[in-house]
Amino acid sequence: MSKLRFRISMSLDGFVAGPHQSKEDPLGVGGMRLHEWVFPLEVFRKMHDMPGGEVNESSLVVKEAFENIGATIMGRNMFGGHPGPWNSAKPWNGWWGDNPPFHTPVFVITHYEREPLVLKAGNSFTFVTEGLAAALQQAKVAAGGCDVSLGGGAQVARGYLREGLIDEMTISLVPILLGSGERLFDDTGEDLQGLELVRTIATRDVIHLRFARAG
Amino acid sequence: MSKLRFRISMSLDGFVAGPHQSKEDPLGVGGMRLHEWVFPLEVFRKMHDMPGGEVNESSLVVKEAFENIGATIMGRNMFGGHPGPWNSAKPWNGWWGDNPPFHTPVFVITHYEREPLVLKAGNSFTFVTEGLAAALQQAKVAAGGCDVSLGGGAQVARGYLREGLIDEMTISLVPILLGSGERLFDDTGEDLQGLELVRTIATRDVIHLRFARAG
Repeated sequence: MSKLRFRISMSLDGFVAGPHQSKEDPLGVGGMRLHEWVFPLEVFRKMHDMPGGEVNESSLVVKEAFENIGATIMGRNMFGGHPGPWNSAKPWNGWWGDNPPFHTPVFVITHYEREPLVLKAGNSFTFVTEGLAAALQQAKVAAGGCDVSLGGGAQVARGYLREGLIDEMTISLVPILLGSGERLFDDTGEDLQGLELVRTIATRDVIHLRFARAG
Repeated sequence: MSKLRFRISMSLDGFVAGPHQSKEDPLGVGGMRLHEWVFPLEVFRKMHDMPGGEVNESSLVVKEAFENIGATIMGRNMFGGHPGPWNSAKPWNGWWGDNPPFHTPVFVITHYEREPLVLKAGNSFTFVTEGLAAALQQAKVAAGGCDVSLGGGAQVARGYLREGLIDEMTISLVPILLGSGERLFDDTGEDLQGLELVRTIATRDVIHLRFARAG
């Protein structure tokens, strides 16, 4: 069965992005510090056509996150650009240029209708205005038996978590403080909706906590 | 040199106590869930004069927390009782009865003066009204070359963290959500004040993240 899987980097104080996210600073002030553990990895460098790089215990976690993924879901804020209705005169086509790193159909949850956007190398963006469950249903069909990756951001992830729709979640806990920004677990209730810690991979720079459904 | 050491259990969403802390419910609603990993341990049961119990990877962490401790610091809220000036007609002498588990001089940070309280088995409580640094100084003298344990709660711990006065910190991360309550890292800034992750001990129920000063 197709699963909804989610991996995200979070600071010790619970933030998944720094404050003041903007077009110029999409991860917010200091937000890049959450991702420093991934940049030296060979598996990351390969994805971005760069040679060399390290192999360590985090390599497996990055590799796994991209395995068997047939579709991707993200929120409007993660797709980025501007708030409100889409500007068709000067369309925002995402942060990633002509060749985004998803290589799957991507479903963007938004309040505003827009025609699908097709880019290079298997990347397409479909804009879903019917909510989280509808986006998941469309993504699962598109995934054709493979899993669906939940890209973020925090708001959309919280919604899927509260609805109990996430089947696997990996929190890559980075032992730093961001002080402010976007919290992942904010008003998410007392219930992990059946998710249990099933594996911990610890390095000096990041601790990967993998949660899955029991049984 | 005498160190200030701090160990606390924290939920995945960052809470170290549940909401609605009261005399009847000192850990707040659901707060007991943060400590379930410790109760089955032999090392914990022994401290409370109970036979039997488990030995697992968490045993070391509990054992370490009590080793080489010569004094303890806590906030007024952790000592408990009532807000405002001390009621000398009906004195509150802590949660722990005649024989508290500290067996060291304890320094309680409060806004209200009070005579020291001496209980059984090496337990005494001194009430410090001159602030965090003064309490630490008195505790270090009392510790006589041993370390000082910072008991909590969250507010006092945040204060010592912001001042850069904590030398070792172990966060026992419990993979559950509490949803609300007292957050440890709340407005603690972007700086761990020289503390770095130096060890992770992972079990299914709790992940112990130990921070210490580099060098």
